[in-house]
Amino acid sequence: VSARPDLGPPPRLGYAASRLDRAAGLRGDEAALKQFSEHPRAGVYAIGGEFVVLKSATGECDPQFTPAEARALGVVRESVFLGLMEQAPRFGFGLDAQAVEALKSRNDLKISDLRSIAVQGMVAAEHLPPLAEAKALLGWHARHRFCPNCGAKTELVQAGWRRDCPACKAEHFPRTDPVVIMLAIAGERCVLGRSYRFVPTMWSCLAGFAEPGESIEEAVRREVLEEVGIACGRVRYFASQPWPFPSSIMIGCHAQALSDTVVVDREELEDARWFERDELAAMLKRQHPQGLTAPPPIAIAHHIIRNFVEAGCDVFR
Amino acid sequence: VSARPDLGPPPRLGYAASRLDRAAGLRGDEAALKQFSEHPRAGVYAIGGEFVVLKSATGECDPQFTPAEARALGVVRESVFLGLMEQAPRFGFGLDAQAVEALKSRNDLKISDLRSIAVQGMVAAEHLPPLAEAKALLGWHARHRFCPNCGAKTELVQAGWRRDCPACKAEHFPRTDPVVIMLAIAGERCVLGRSYRFVPTMWSCLAGFAEPGESIEEAVRREVLEEVGIACGRVRYFASQPWPFPSSIMIGCHAQALSDTVVVDREELEDARWFERDELAAMLKRQHPQGLTAPPPIAIAHHIIRNFVEAGCDVFR
Repeated sequence: VSARPDLGPPPRLGYAASRLDRAAGLRGDEAALKQFSEHPRAGVYAIGGEFVVLKSATGECDPQFTPAEARALGVVRESVFLGLMEQAPRFGFGLDAQAVEALKSRNDLKISDLRSIAVQGMVAAEHLPPLAEAKALLGWHARHRFCPNCGAKTELVQAGWRRDCPACKAEHFPRTDPVVIMLAIAGERCVLGRSYRFVPTMWSCLAGFAEPGESIEEAVRREVLEEVGIACGRVRYFASQPWPFPSSIMIGCHAQALSDTVVVDREELEDARWFERDELAAMLKRQHPQGLTAPPPIAIAHHIIRNFVEAGCDVFR
Repeated sequence: VSARPDLGPPPRLGYAASRLDRAAGLRGDEAALKQFSEHPRAGVYAIGGEFVVLKSATGECDPQFTPAEARALGVVRESVFLGLMEQAPRFGFGLDAQAVEALKSRNDLKISDLRSIAVQGMVAAEHLPPLAEAKALLGWHARHRFCPNCGAKTELVQAGWRRDCPACKAEHFPRTDPVVIMLAIAGERCVLGRSYRFVPTMWSCLAGFAEPGESIEEAVRREVLEEVGIACGRVRYFASQPWPFPSSIMIGCHAQALSDTVVVDREELEDARWFERDELAAMLKRQHPQGLTAPPPIAIAHHIIRNFVEAGCDVFR
């Protein structure tokens, strides 16, 4: 058994650990919402499609606008109430993706996607969870302006936390898609795969959407079997993370591999193979002799792998 | 600390542990699907809204029809491929809810909801997971026949695992809603609540939908704080369960309560209070002096409570 490698203090899980009070009880309170919209410390995140608008700065950018500043950026398609931070309300404003693209020419602004913002530390860490909340919610609105039950146009209600259909009276709630992401382990090694869209050096955990009628544990076993042909026994939950690309929750697990032979599903993966703990430690420290890498700490995959590197089969204890 | 009570062998988690091979790789294979539809051992579950059609019998009913038998029950709105059981294909047929209601007068059939079917053991246990898969998937189709992106009528593709929009080209996947369900624990006691729709004697775990931008752990803490005013520290995942009412996955947790005073949110709950482990044991055994009960073993709440009764604070180990 390898000695416990020194990887330093554990990094923060990206987008999790929000400091906002969502104050869900106030979403239907018109008087409170009106007060919030006029609050002198109201903060607005401005998002269009995959892009977030930041106030440009050397060092950390500021992702917060006043409501008036945000309205001046473009037509606001939807406004959502995210919650309270030290009694001050935070909102998300949804702009058209093209309108935000057009802002790229302004040098008082910086337009970037939320992955890059997190990986490159463009904003203070406290902003990442409410930005994720805003992006997931506004993306849902942008793709759900019509009623899936009858086809009529729907209306935003409850400060952005529901859409109602005036025709068939159906109520629609924001969608969050559970994704299982896992490391299949046997003794001192585990299976990583490469998606076709990865940079050439990167390897990561396998992952896939949980399907209707499945438990988390069943989804983990099915995905590993489908993607690499390995049956799994015990499944152990590790941690979870919101992942607003567009609206997932990543459910991280370790799984006990019961067989050896990797059979790669080439429709899903470019490649997959076994990795020893020592090799993984080098990848996490960015000291791998061939330059192979694991995902950055913003992604739960990093933590799932790191936990195995540090604890070995104790991940199942 | 109470002695470990004898509750007998652990019961099975309802709807989980499917024996079907979902054979997801064949969902786009028209030739294979045609063969399956003509397979001599093809089995069909017939579902309309909340109701499942069973072949009536003394003892266990049979929920499986041949494709021809199922088509004779009413107009088939959607057909979905569920997977293979010992090489024989299983399908779900979605009928109109009213058509199924009308079948209640036939005495060769039994029409029942999937909760009652599970609680009363009306069918062999192996059928419960594919029935849950079929109900969740067919319910999604019934509520998603139009494109939420543009309002046009969508088409069922991929053997029922996707709907495509011919107008805007959007692809829509079945929806599964993550719900956190948890027991807030302090020492030898925990908090249970009563929903307004419960039978008068029943108490259960608190629960609520995970929201966009939340981890499981954050959703657990928010829901307990909202519903009973108690802040929680450590959250420990316990198990999960598909819950097709209409399309949830229940994510069961134990949480460490950091405060004492229960403040009930009367919009959500009729009541909530602390319960001692001894009282819970009596409820699980249906021997409570006032006749109070916990949910039946079909529901994950039963198992979350039972685990605390058996292990106490060791649930956090």
